[in-house]
Amino acid sequence: NVCPIESLDYEIAENDFFKQDWRARGKVQIFQYIFMKWLLCFLIGGFVSLAGFFNNLAVENIAGVKFVITSNMMLSQRYWMAFLVFSLSNLALTLFAAIITAFISPAAAGSGIPEVKAYLNGVDAPGILSIRTLIVKIVGSIAAVSSSLLVGKAGPMVHTGSCIAALFGQGGSRRYGLTWKWLRFFKNDRDRRDLVTCGSAAGIAAAFRAPVGGVLFALEEMASWWRSALLWRAFFTTAVVAIILRALIDVCLSGKCGLFGKGGLIMFDVYSANVSYHLADVPPVLALGVIGGILGSFYNFLLVKVLKVYNLVNEKGTFYKIFIACTISIFTSCLLFGLPWLVSCQSCPSDASEDCPTIGRSGNYKKFQCPPGHYNDLASLIFNTNDDAIRNLFSKNTDSEFQLSTMLIFFVTCFILSIFSYGIVAPAGLFVPVIVTGASYGRFIGMLIGSWGNLSHGLYAVLGAASFLGGSMRMTVSLCVIILELTNNLLLLPLIMVVLLVSKTVADAFNGNVYDLIMKVKGFPYLETHAEPYMRQLTVADVVSGPLQLCHGIEKVGNIVHILKTTMHHGFPVIDESPHSESPVLYGLILRAHLIALLKKKAFLCTPVQLGADAFRHFSSDDFAKKGLGNVDKIEDIELTDEEMEMFLDLHPFTNASPYTVVDTMSLAKALILFREVGLRHLLVIPKISSRAPVVGILTRHDFMPEH
Amino acid sequence: NVCPIESLDYEIAENDFFKQDWRARGKVQIFQYIFMKWLLCFLIGGFVSLAGFFNNLAVENIAGVKFVITSNMMLSQRYWMAFLVFSLSNLALTLFAAIITAFISPAAAGSGIPEVKAYLNGVDAPGILSIRTLIVKIVGSIAAVSSSLLVGKAGPMVHTGSCIAALFGQGGSRRYGLTWKWLRFFKNDRDRRDLVTCGSAAGIAAAFRAPVGGVLFALEEMASWWRSALLWRAFFTTAVVAIILRALIDVCLSGKCGLFGKGGLIMFDVYSANVSYHLADVPPVLALGVIGGILGSFYNFLLVKVLKVYNLVNEKGTFYKIFIACTISIFTSCLLFGLPWLVSCQSCPSDASEDCPTIGRSGNYKKFQCPPGHYNDLASLIFNTNDDAIRNLFSKNTDSEFQLSTMLIFFVTCFILSIFSYGIVAPAGLFVPVIVTGASYGRFIGMLIGSWGNLSHGLYAVLGAASFLGGSMRMTVSLCVIILELTNNLLLLPLIMVVLLVSKTVADAFNGNVYDLIMKVKGFPYLETHAEPYMRQLTVADVVSGPLQLCHGIEKVGNIVHILKTTMHHGFPVIDESPHSESPVLYGLILRAHLIALLKKKAFLCTPVQLGADAFRHFSSDDFAKKGLGNVDKIEDIELTDEEMEMFLDLHPFTNASPYTVVDTMSLAKALILFREVGLRHLLVIPKISSRAPVVGILTRHDFMPEH
Ligand SMILES: Nc1ncnc2c1ncn2[C@@H]1O[C@H](COP(=O)(O)OP(=O)(O)OP(=O)(O)O)[C@@H](O)[C@H]1O
Ligand SMILES: Nc1ncnc2c1ncn2[C@@H]1O[C@H](COP(=O)(O)OP(=O)(O)OP(=O)(O)O)[C@@H](O)[C@H]1O
Ligand SMILES: [Mg+2]
Ligand SMILES: [Mg+2]
Repeated sequence: NVCPIESLDYEIAENDFFKQDWRARGKVQIFQYIFMKWLLCFLIGGFVSLAGFFNNLAVENIAGVKFVITSNMMLSQRYWMAFLVFSLSNLALTLFAAIITAFISPAAAGSGIPEVKAYLNGVDAPGILSIRTLIVKIVGSIAAVSSSLLVGKAGPMVHTGSCIAALFGQGGSRRYGLTWKWLRFFKNDRDRRDLVTCGSAAGIAAAFRAPVGGVLFALEEMASWWRSALLWRAFFTTAVVAIILRALIDVCLSGKCGLFGKGGLIMFDVYSANVSYHLADVPPVLALGVIGGILGSFYNFLLVKVLKVYNLVNEKGTFYKIFIACTISIFTSCLLFGLPWLVSCQSCPSDASEDCPTIGRSGNYKKFQCPPGHYNDLASLIFNTNDDAIRNLFSKNTDSEFQLSTMLIFFVTCFILSIFSYGIVAPAGLFVPVIVTGASYGRFIGMLIGSWGNLSHGLYAVLGAASFLGGSMRMTVSLCVIILELTNNLLLLPLIMVVLLVSKTVADAFNGNVYDLIMKVKGFPYLETHAEPYMRQLTVADVVSGPLQLCHGIEKVGNIVHILKTTMHHGFPVIDESPHSESPVLYGLILRAHLIALLKKKAFLCTPVQLGADAFRHFSSDDFAKKGLGNVDKIEDIELTDEEMEMFLDLHPFTNASPYTVVDTMSLAKALILFREVGLRHLLVIPKISSRAPVVGILTRHDFMPEH
Repeated sequence: NVCPIESLDYEIAENDFFKQDWRARGKVQIFQYIFMKWLLCFLIGGFVSLAGFFNNLAVENIAGVKFVITSNMMLSQRYWMAFLVFSLSNLALTLFAAIITAFISPAAAGSGIPEVKAYLNGVDAPGILSIRTLIVKIVGSIAAVSSSLLVGKAGPMVHTGSCIAALFGQGGSRRYGLTWKWLRFFKNDRDRRDLVTCGSAAGIAAAFRAPVGGVLFALEEMASWWRSALLWRAFFTTAVVAIILRALIDVCLSGKCGLFGKGGLIMFDVYSANVSYHLADVPPVLALGVIGGILGSFYNFLLVKVLKVYNLVNEKGTFYKIFIACTISIFTSCLLFGLPWLVSCQSCPSDASEDCPTIGRSGNYKKFQCPPGHYNDLASLIFNTNDDAIRNLFSKNTDSEFQLSTMLIFFVTCFILSIFSYGIVAPAGLFVPVIVTGASYGRFIGMLIGSWGNLSHGLYAVLGAASFLGGSMRMTVSLCVIILELTNNLLLLPLIMVVLLVSKTVADAFNGNVYDLIMKVKGFPYLETHAEPYMRQLTVADVVSGPLQLCHGIEKVGNIVHILKTTMHHGFPVIDESPHSESPVLYGLILRAHLIALLKKKAFLCTPVQLGADAFRHFSSDDFAKKGLGNVDKIEDIELTDEEMEMFLDLHPFTNASPYTVVDTMSLAKALILFREVGLRHLLVIPKISSRAPVVGILTRHDFMPEH
């Protein structure tokens, strides 16, 4: 019955102690709080943009060196040697990523978006936002992406951003002596949630250089609670990201960043002044949307199936995890190196806008094994970083560059590789694989349609990417803005909107959004906004279970210790015997953490009397601040003598005296609205007809889960 | 104590009758509901885009004809005649707009955004979303904008969109025989709210041809409650708008729309492939932001002051309202016609990209009174529609076109005119005036900076418009996206973000957002998300007032009629005598509308006995559906005999048996969270210590207002 994953608590605990503390707060403290809020957002933006930039720089340079070396070997026709260097360097990079992930922080595996989404929904899974995860995520993501695996960096960037934000929200670290009084206001789940939301927005902003898209992504996909004020702060954070990135790219344009350096703020610019399309172009675009929806939901289905198989294997031990990663890496290397041999060489166009074949690293025309004056079109896509592949696919005025068969091979390869690469034990995003796959199938369709339509193949690739994103991730506004910011083509907007709508609608008929599916596989108790139909049939009285663990207003220390030791609950109703009537009355709700804080201070009473404000003397608000990163005090660590066990504690001043309550005849659906909208962890159920017990049960997140 | 403006109710009333009704709903009904939801969004999108297009077409043609005629007279040097035609046609148009507004629907005056925002917050002011308002708004807005007043059309479009959406949400009209069974599911405030949100998004989308910006505007500025599902529906609606507008513009490009026709989907295209700016450009941009913030808040301050003065005058009668409108129209005509005489003529540049001087309607070079080969730069801005003025200000490669003094005169004129034009009794938006004013001051600053910076004057105008919008309207993401969609310049994005952030921050230090200020002047009880500091000091027990009006579970008809007649409350707690204990228990809450529905059916009991499901026989769910557009049944209309007055009603099956409750020791701030997040109209307060009364009070929206 007790789930290892605990919830976060966004309720304002109103007890006498906090009230007094709040009253003592002056103007200065409020100023400190506001100032710190903005400063932290600024710092989050700064660090995330640095992390994003560093990630980009490292990937482009590591992968770049790899490709330059192998290309040079290919030029001198040492093909086997090239293959060996290519696959071994990939293997080494993958192995490195897998080992640090498996041994240092398994929570850093995968995209991180489902985990952060669950955190923002109020699920506190251990280790998700720790400093270890942060480091592994940054380094591992660089290694994984450079190793030619078909994995993305956007998801890991979101996770990185959230980790950075969560670390700032810790209120310093006592262990490392990093404490600052001004940070103490952030020691609660509400403020941390806001920071993490800003961090995730900054992550997308840094990964795609899409500041507005980042905010919208955080709003649409990540956040479960949202306020206008938060929108503004997230906007501020991503604005900082945009400006710092803009400045850093300015620096790189002067050529100081090695192989990184081309391209401005827009990653895949496909601007053209006169995109013209008419009614005749609508049917193929609709078809693109429908196919994208079907493919996207199929992709989700397969991804989850593969993930489950991986999970079964992974359970056997760390060795197996790393083994899978290595297998996938070798498989990928073989495919990437082998497939281009299958397609025929193309002769260079005479009017090519750039060198053909390209000898350097990136460019549209890779020579691979072809004779001079020819290029291998599949190698141009495959033997490249993913970003360059996308750029090639999106490029305009290249309608005759690729063969139809090439496109088909590339699409199938990407589809398969991206499904098998996601589940390995290394940081791996989904955005870029989905964009590559979608772009290739879009371009394929564009080539099929040929001159019948008005759009160029590059624009079909953009629409294909949109449809596949829509079919797999099911966002609307945020994807729209992200694609806009990636490609800088506003005239295409109506078509992109249509494609997204169609593909999302079609895909929703089959299954859920890919992140939700992954979240379900991971077993996070995610709380939906809307009630399931069965919830309208049940009343809360039907769900509350078992005998209630209660405390009395003035309770014996021994009893408290007993309750804490024998149960794992985190909230306990406090009842008082009332002098007027025979039945006790509900005083409030006390949290486990507060009970433990009380026990730790050992300010016990010898007799069961009620203390006034006197009780506060021994405590500072820091004692009751919520600890971060899952390092909670345990009841087992507190040692009490038998004498102390016989003493008393007055719980009144520390009990939340105004918990939210519902009557037991309320339907579960209606209780869910309160629970979810207000962001509660515990909801007390009171009897409709006053009976002996003033409270009949307590609802937590688990009671709203369908499987319960 | 009783406020004439009533609230909307988003709570799910869970009574036995509704529960039974809900259980009876099959798969078919659920399908009908979902189908209708999307169909209505589609229809809303369609109608709003037609309205927007028609508005554009009419304005361009009416204003166009006016300008062509006066220009021709100016060419033949009949200056006085030109002035007469110009000012009289302006006066006639303004008079027309003012008269229909004043006599048919006074609620259509002004922008409409504050009203719709209040509606979406749960304030049901009479007549705001009626069909009369819709018609007056569409026609009046065309007349007002064509009459050269400095008023915009975006606000009226939002109001139009909301009216259209609200009308669809009526569930047909029995009076006109327009009923359709499938529409019956929308007869509640929750579904209507969703529709109106989509409608307001469609309004901005149609006004600025900015579909994504429209969604975000509705999200950031308009909506008080938001869900992911709603985001998707709003996106669908604006996508419909975008596609229909795109198709209509395609039609117009072939020249069938009279003087309307130029320009594609992007209204003020300022794209340039290489906007380059560096660190040196940041200080002027920051300065722009600061000045924009100061000017914006000053603008809001003055606007509200003028509005208050107008209100005082308007109270004297309709004649005074129309008098003000005429005065402003004449004043505007004089200024617009007179000011261009003050500036010196400029000689045409030899390398002008278009004809100079322009003889036709729009264009950068207006001849006005100048000799051939010369143009009047102030007339190019002033003697034009606002859209063309903005286009001129934003245009690139025209750095030497305007004189510094021209810009200053234009800025001051716009600033003053837009403040005085808003409050007149005609539909009048704020967006366009703010953009014009901001663009002129931005260009002025750009000219001051001159060649010191890297940005062209047109881009400074864009940034100036952004800063003034930010300073006056205080949105972030939505303004950013709207500006992006208006100007199609993604490279400028980081600068726009900075400018918006700075101007909003600066302006927030002085006063609130312009719509909130107007809302306050109008006296709408708008419920904020965040609690005021004083609310943390008060408990709910401190606020509940007066003797509570209660019903009993089985109540005499006479008593019910008495309560309904003597009070204006809309919710009454229902209590039951409990057999077990001496004190009564709370059964639930019954709504005034439901009581009246019960009385109307006259299905009374002779003896006070409790009925079972038998009671439902007389009723269908339609009897309890919420009527739209404020046509509620009144208690005065129900005539009951003395005999009937002595009979009884069993209220149990119609009472919401699980209302949300709070204990009386809860702070007002915490109660506000529940009230606001869940969207309640009535919140019951129960005593902490069980006493004689099972409920001590009832909280409504007014109890959370600071002035209370
Ligand atoms: N004080 C209590 N006495 C009896 N049952 C409880 C109590 N608190 C919670 N429960 C029940 O135990 C089940 C498991 O809850 P659990 O103890 O995990 O709650 P929690 O740890 O306080 O909250 P969460 O797990 O959401 O962080 C819930 O379904 C709830 O109904
Ligand atoms: N049944 C009642 N008995 C006594 N006082 C009430 C009752 N209902 C509301 N009040 C009080 O009367 C004041 C005015 O409320 P009013 O009657 O306008 O509420 P309403 O019309 O039900 O809701 P709203 O005005 O928000 O639409 C409130 O401050 C509330 O405290
Ligand atoms: Mg638990
Ligand atoms: Mg009222």
